Amino acid sequence: MREVGVDKVNLAAKLGRFEQLWAPRIVGELNGQHVKLAKIKGAFDWHRHEREDELFLVVRGRFRMELRERSIELDEGEMLIVPRGVEHRPVADEECHILLFEPASTVNTGDLRNARTIEHPEWI
Amino acid sequence: MREVGVDKVNLAAKLGRFEQLWAPRIVGELNGQHVKLAKIKGAFDWHRHEREDELFLVVRGRFRMELRERSIELDEGEMLIVPRGVEHRPVADEECHILLFEPASTVNTGDLRNARTIEHPEWI
Repeated sequence: MREVGVDKVNLAAKLGRFEQLWAPRIVGELNGQHVKLAKIKGAFDWHRHEREDELFLVVRGRFRMELRERSIELDEGEMLIVPRGVEHRPVADEECHILLFEPASTVNTGDLRNARTIEHPEWI
Repeated sequence: MREVGVDKVNLAAKLGRFEQLWAPRIVGELNGQHVKLAKIKGAFDWHRHEREDELFLVVRGRFRMELRERSIELDEGEMLIVPRGVEHRPVADEECHILLFEPASTVNTGDLRNARTIEHPEWI
């Protein structure tokens, strides 16, 4: 009955609140899952998530998801679910804005830990 | 390692595959959650979900989510999470296309069973 806290999220407005690349921000939580927004450009690191399936939805621009055996081009209004265990690497030639949907436990670099690892993403 | 089955989903293309109002179609599954698309117009029934939080994202058009004490207008690119237990009723003056994100167990009419109840949504 938490009606008081129910409020809408405007994706473009939230995206206007940060510039940092490869640093997902949390914009919602439900059923143990987080909704995140991220700005990406260039190539990320190859990684996989052992226990989490991950959804990517393009809000603005385009990027390609490289898998080990092929790549998938994603345009605005297209989404991809990368199942747990599957190695992947997002690559964007131009800046691209994406919505992520994944368990709250998900770390952006998966099984990898490096300078781009963000253990506790910021809420915006 | 189910890389073989990984494929993108174009939301507009999927929305072109059905016309029925108030009958969500499943377009993805991850972490026990379903991604659904729905076309809505008019007023739905008041209901609540006892155990499921529900996310609504407007893909095309606009609608308002009526809660018992207020209403929230949602435009394209805006999303709303209705927590479990909160009574709600979506109302669209014109046809609106939405993406839903919710546990696979979620029934569209929540605690209500009527002619609009769909226990097992179709995959498209």
